[in-house]
Amino acid sequence: MKTSRRSQVPPFAVMEIIAAANARRAAGHPVLNLCAGQPAAGASPVVKERAAQLLATGDLGYTEATGSPALRQEIAGHYRRWYGVEVDPRQVAVTTGSSGGFMLAFLAAFDVGDRVALARPGYPAYKNILTALGCEVVEVDCGPATGHQPTVELLDAAHAAGPLSGLVLASPANPTGTMIGADGLRDLSRWCAEHDVRLISDEIYHGITYTDARSTQATAATHLPDGAVVVSSFSKYWGMTGWRLGWLVLPDELVAPVDALAGNVALCPPALGQHAAVAAFTPAGYAAAEAEVARYAESRRLVLDRLDDLGWRRTAPPDGAFYLYGDVSATGLDSVTWCARLLAEADVALTPGTDFDAVDGHSWVRLSFAAPTPVVAEATDRIVAWQRTL
Amino acid sequence: MKTSRRSQVPPFAVMEIIAAANARRAAGHPVLNLCAGQPAAGASPVVKERAAQLLATGDLGYTEATGSPALRQEIAGHYRRWYGVEVDPRQVAVTTGSSGGFMLAFLAAFDVGDRVALARPGYPAYKNILTALGCEVVEVDCGPATGHQPTVELLDAAHAAGPLSGLVLASPANPTGTMIGADGLRDLSRWCAEHDVRLISDEIYHGITYTDARSTQATAATHLPDGAVVVSSFSKYWGMTGWRLGWLVLPDELVAPVDALAGNVALCPPALGQHAAVAAFTPAGYAAAEAEVARYAESRRLVLDRLDDLGWRRTAPPDGAFYLYGDVSATGLDSVTWCARLLAEADVALTPGTDFDAVDGHSWVRLSFAAPTPVVAEATDRIVAWQRTL
Repeated sequence: MKTSRRSQVPPFAVMEIIAAANARRAAGHPVLNLCAGQPAAGASPVVKERAAQLLATGDLGYTEATGSPALRQEIAGHYRRWYGVEVDPRQVAVTTGSSGGFMLAFLAAFDVGDRVALARPGYPAYKNILTALGCEVVEVDCGPATGHQPTVELLDAAHAAGPLSGLVLASPANPTGTMIGADGLRDLSRWCAEHDVRLISDEIYHGITYTDARSTQATAATHLPDGAVVVSSFSKYWGMTGWRLGWLVLPDELVAPVDALAGNVALCPPALGQHAAVAAFTPAGYAAAEAEVARYAESRRLVLDRLDDLGWRRTAPPDGAFYLYGDVSATGLDSVTWCARLLAEADVALTPGTDFDAVDGHSWVRLSFAAPTPVVAEATDRIVAWQRTL
Repeated sequence: MKTSRRSQVPPFAVMEIIAAANARRAAGHPVLNLCAGQPAAGASPVVKERAAQLLATGDLGYTEATGSPALRQEIAGHYRRWYGVEVDPRQVAVTTGSSGGFMLAFLAAFDVGDRVALARPGYPAYKNILTALGCEVVEVDCGPATGHQPTVELLDAAHAAGPLSGLVLASPANPTGTMIGADGLRDLSRWCAEHDVRLISDEIYHGITYTDARSTQATAATHLPDGAVVVSSFSKYWGMTGWRLGWLVLPDELVAPVDALAGNVALCPPALGQHAAVAAFTPAGYAAAEAEVARYAESRRLVLDRLDDLGWRRTAPPDGAFYLYGDVSATGLDSVTWCARLLAEADVALTPGTDFDAVDGHSWVRLSFAAPTPVVAEATDRIVAWQRTL
């Protein structure tokens, strides 16, 4: 019986790496995993304690489709606290991870056939969800010269080839860790407003930044155009990956459509996580998250100190998130081969750039330093030593 | 800025009832809720204990996109135990509730423009998800004469109007609680096989049945045609609504597409719930669920004993699930008005049939007896007394 055309999603090369890594680990090899965007610490103790209380005494039935009022209130407070921006809790929709948020935002904003632009390299799920929903994905070739981020000139060219309905931006970005500065975001926002293009701003790595980032973000948040949708998550800064909890900040005209869609598409986000996540916004919740960001900073420093030893031709500036995106083409190996051999010969797992960029990704790999710092240190040593054997 | 055409989902009338009920409750009125499909007991103690242990010691990071191997194994075992059917754990995909399962099944099976048939009355999310995905929904008018379920004759007519790609069946059904017998399912299955129509079998109310049901289901499970997709859930029989956990049983050709889609669309189902749900398949897990089914049976008996007093023109036979679907048109009121007045005048919340059937639903209401039995008893008394005032 036929399968749908839209289910023909390209497989991720990293899945083969993970399968091979698991097989090697099962066979007793000391595999180090730098391929996952998986914060090592997980949820903070205060969130887990709240969850334990709720398990004993709480109502774990359905919540409102776009999340419990208490959590939406806390998320709105977070925007006041971090960005000095007033967000009405009505505009906040809690979602089942940012994945659930992208699904709802794309469904509410775009119809079948709409053209939506996004950066290449980029997080592959944007492209694959949009394609599954019948949208036309317009990849914007974003090289090192623009920090792997779109520019007004690149968007002009994409728009000239056929009017765009949407633009997905990510800052900090996955896989590159690069950020769009306040000036850049202002220009992109103005361009979106002038061209009636809806901006979807992926901010799931906000809070995990290493340069002038927090202030950049605060400025940036005030620069989004009317109609922009913010997508965020508890997975990264708060380390709650497996809890599947994220949120959207919506413009007025999308509040009712997202509410109606959410009840049908998801019913509600996971209840226990919603109720427990309220504790993420306590001082203890923020403190635990900041301690992890400090640890990522240490791991990042450690990797950056070895850049000469790594000898990669180019690396994207890792201003945020916990990724280093590097060009390994000087080794003469395609990144898929490079990753497969690194795993087989040195027991370190990285992600080939091909998962983020089907055109130029053969030169690049993504190193995640979300793992515990000693793991990152040992893995970096192994990569340096292994490359010398090539 | 434009919102998508596909986000124009009709609002649920029950949402206004719920809002009004909450307002009345906040104002001190003793509102009884028979509108939600929300099992009163929630998850079993053994599942919650397992969850508490995992919170203290477990890994709550991402799992495999289609669920942890341990849970998939348990679900496969459940099919052996209940139905005597061998299911390869490879064919099982754990999903974020049945909602997540429908999304994945529909994406994997159907393209934009494909015609998919479903019963009217029926669970509105089928229709709304399919429409959002660009499919053409073909509502099959299923009246009391066929137990509100499709027949081969009805499908022949729908297919003649334009070839169908899919058929969604639900047994026990929401909102009617009716079931398709083994003979009926065999006929429908054969029809699907002969017409190359993919059957999506919603089995989320399996286990909550009151007649010859368990054996019917066992027979039924062996009657599904090649290519059929089973959708199920931990929400109803196991009472785990807010945990957002369900599963699919997939034919071979959909295993890889669903796996690829799941990673993009959802990343993975909630991790804590997955790990804890393994305990649902222990003897204590089943025993807790069966105790609730016995309680629903008591509530159902209690409502059926009042049918004469209720005086509804017709009711669907509530063979399974925890719903009584009744025709209140003898009161002279439209069901939306009937529900609004019942709430305002007697503080009982029911769901108008219009949420399940835009054509004939004005005559019908859905009474959920998933609430605690004393609540169901008191609410039924109030309905009977209130109707006498009309």
